[in-house]
Amino acid sequence: MAPQLEPFFKQVDDLSGSFIDRLRKAVAIPSISAQDENRKDVFRMAQFLASELEALGAEVEQRPLGKQPGKEHLDLPPVVIARYGNDKNKRTILVYGHYDVQPALKEDGWATEPFELTVDDQGRMFGRGSTDDKGPVLGWLNVIEAHKKAGVDFPVNLLCCFEGMEEYGSEGLEEFIQAESKKFFKDADAVCISDNYWLGTEKPCLTYGLRGCNYYSVSVSGPAQDLHSGVFGGSAHEPMTDLVNVLSKLVDPQGNILIPGIMDLVEPLSEDEKSLYPNISYTMDNLHESLGSETGIHSTKERTLMARWRYPSLSIHGIEGAYSAPGAKTVIPAKVIGKFSIRTVPNMESEDVNKLVFDHIKSEFAKLNSKNKLDVWLQHDGKWWVASPKHWNFTAASKAVKQVFGVEPDMTREGGSIPVTLNFEQATGKNVLLLPMGSSTDAAHSVNEKLDKRNYIEGTKLLGAYLHYVAEEPMNH
Amino acid sequence: MAPQLEPFFKQVDDLSGSFIDRLRKAVAIPSISAQDENRKDVFRMAQFLASELEALGAEVEQRPLGKQPGKEHLDLPPVVIARYGNDKNKRTILVYGHYDVQPALKEDGWATEPFELTVDDQGRMFGRGSTDDKGPVLGWLNVIEAHKKAGVDFPVNLLCCFEGMEEYGSEGLEEFIQAESKKFFKDADAVCISDNYWLGTEKPCLTYGLRGCNYYSVSVSGPAQDLHSGVFGGSAHEPMTDLVNVLSKLVDPQGNILIPGIMDLVEPLSEDEKSLYPNISYTMDNLHESLGSETGIHSTKERTLMARWRYPSLSIHGIEGAYSAPGAKTVIPAKVIGKFSIRTVPNMESEDVNKLVFDHIKSEFAKLNSKNKLDVWLQHDGKWWVASPKHWNFTAASKAVKQVFGVEPDMTREGGSIPVTLNFEQATGKNVLLLPMGSSTDAAHSVNEKLDKRNYIEGTKLLGAYLHYVAEEPMNH
Repeated sequence: MAPQLEPFFKQVDDLSGSFIDRLRKAVAIPSISAQDENRKDVFRMAQFLASELEALGAEVEQRPLGKQPGKEHLDLPPVVIARYGNDKNKRTILVYGHYDVQPALKEDGWATEPFELTVDDQGRMFGRGSTDDKGPVLGWLNVIEAHKKAGVDFPVNLLCCFEGMEEYGSEGLEEFIQAESKKFFKDADAVCISDNYWLGTEKPCLTYGLRGCNYYSVSVSGPAQDLHSGVFGGSAHEPMTDLVNVLSKLVDPQGNILIPGIMDLVEPLSEDEKSLYPNISYTMDNLHESLGSETGIHSTKERTLMARWRYPSLSIHGIEGAYSAPGAKTVIPAKVIGKFSIRTVPNMESEDVNKLVFDHIKSEFAKLNSKNKLDVWLQHDGKWWVASPKHWNFTAASKAVKQVFGVEPDMTREGGSIPVTLNFEQATGKNVLLLPMGSSTDAAHSVNEKLDKRNYIEGTKLLGAYLHYVAEEPMNH
Repeated sequence: MAPQLEPFFKQVDDLSGSFIDRLRKAVAIPSISAQDENRKDVFRMAQFLASELEALGAEVEQRPLGKQPGKEHLDLPPVVIARYGNDKNKRTILVYGHYDVQPALKEDGWATEPFELTVDDQGRMFGRGSTDDKGPVLGWLNVIEAHKKAGVDFPVNLLCCFEGMEEYGSEGLEEFIQAESKKFFKDADAVCISDNYWLGTEKPCLTYGLRGCNYYSVSVSGPAQDLHSGVFGGSAHEPMTDLVNVLSKLVDPQGNILIPGIMDLVEPLSEDEKSLYPNISYTMDNLHESLGSETGIHSTKERTLMARWRYPSLSIHGIEGAYSAPGAKTVIPAKVIGKFSIRTVPNMESEDVNKLVFDHIKSEFAKLNSKNKLDVWLQHDGKWWVASPKHWNFTAASKAVKQVFGVEPDMTREGGSIPVTLNFEQATGKNVLLLPMGSSTDAAHSVNEKLDKRNYIEGTKLLGAYLHYVAEEPMNH
């Protein structure tokens, strides 16, 4: 064990009551970024964080981001940045979190008041923001406090970057990160983000990859206005017929992408990477539970997780312009727009993917011999992210997990995207680690969001231990 | 010419001003059946019709239909039934029309006040209901008046059935027709409905067929709730992928139905029937004009009209449960329901069509090897209708067209359905003729609905002449 962890751990246990009080105070502030009427609460929450950090001895600034685009009567909440420690002989770790939360109303189906932290006899702490992301953010504050009270030297310089618009698209953050890359963030040796979840409920994980997403629209248009299918059916090319045909050529029911060349862009699976999968704490039952059905494609957990994390997928989301209501309407829609997206992985470059998609769709449409008009375009893209799990940033976190939880962490990736991860990597050029505190059952964004007391308190120990191991790790990148 | 037509025609010309006044009064009553607040106006319109008919010497009843299903605070408007003449030595003709109209607001884009009949210098009479269906309904009244004023013996006994809910699904009418089939309607020797349109603008038509419609839903479901495509994409069977695949197997972009066996149900084209098409006044330009595009499937007018009238077609209308809004959403919908319908023609029996559809869809879904669940069902069906155009009812109308307009009428069918046609045929067991008054440019249901003065006045002559020829035709059916 790193020498100073024992007194730190003991102090965390001793302070656990006050740490929960800190979370209770934070949850009580309904800092809902998506609702105009709560904007003042988002600002209150920023002030709460800043005051707590100042009281702990950090240098704190609340950095304004200007007016909210499209809602110019609203100020964007500030980014709360803080520095704790400024020792040239120590490593500097940049941590990110967010202090805004999703909307929540008791009548949505909450068993408790969403903005009153309620701890049940199993140690589940219910409340909006408990796990996403107030618990993890306060974890860093708890780490500082426990070190101070235990008289343990803080092992690194800590830079905090806490935003208040994460649940509403992180408005303004990317520009802020870019602008501060050579200023506030310039000393950072590595980045740690605690804003995702364990794969299950028992075993912590370190997350080293995220998929990207290219989102496409494909439109087919023909007649100048919607037609009556009785009057015109059989005599005119129908855009919906053509679109359904084109969409059926994108992916097969086993999830195989049918666009020629796409799979050639995918980095082959190495033996090294393959070896990470068998030990991961996950079962097919876990998949079936989260699906609510036994409609998984693959028969093994390894292939299932790879399909989610390290292979691309293509999903058809819907069709705009066609009849989508319940009931029956005998319309021939004049223009229909299919929506689909491809989750991207290394080494799929967006431009290459776009070209393959556009060529394939145009070629399939040409085969239809329709007089209708087809158009296809990219709505938006976001790049995949993969970090090296061999970097000292990960090795330190792995040792911390072993120390606090007695197990090797699962090395995970995620199928979705967390754009701030890539923003930090690109702005700082440093390794980024996702180090979650909450578990898979925490119901972030849903009713009855919770954080288990164990995850919060042991998680605080984990964050602190991680910083100690970070201080000891040899430079390898 | 039938002997008494000349004085009748002259009288119609002499009364044309007062006939237009009659239409003006009718259009001024906003008898919109779909809007609760106008229900009183629908009743007012019934009263107007009843009073006019009584003044002309008809025996009139306003027959209540009870409360409106689902809107029990509203009384259904009455069916106005009338008998004019009761001579056992004359044929009895049942005529149908409706006195309710579609909604209309000036701000929808009307150039004139929709409920003020406005006649322009080209003789176009703009106003909601002018062509659909107040003009044709009043045409029958005009015929009676002109006979009376000209002192010409009325050639038939006339039974009128005018309803007030046609634009809202003819609520209650089918039951009424059934119930009266052996009572009020029992003497009818043939039926004439004036509630459709010429194929173009110059040449009248007689309509002898309508397609039916079988409307289907096909659902595919998998997970218990919508999934995030980042988290689950690639690991679970996606209902939307399966549905798009199944829908792509229903019809090809050239309009060919891909369901095995469907085309075997279609009555072969006889030489007799084929010979009706070349003379029909219709061009490919007419098709392109109505489509607003040159996206017709077939290259000749004959094949185009046959595709609309005498061959089945399959249209995919849309998908319920998928993402249909503008923008981008990375959802994997848990359950999606495709909607499509088949326009049916002789001799497609609904049960046979259903079986072929269900078998085909289930067999195509089975090929997908998906663990999702598929269901397919009929939402509703309505039978096709084809009358014999050689029946004396049609021969009489054809002679009347020749007499009034100097041309042989187009013998047409329609691709859509007019359910009341089949209701009357089934209830009376007699031949039904569709004898339109308005032209293809009348914009029924749209803004700036109009009826040309020529169509109204010459159309009144046509209805009267038809009754005279009906009286003379030998019995052939």
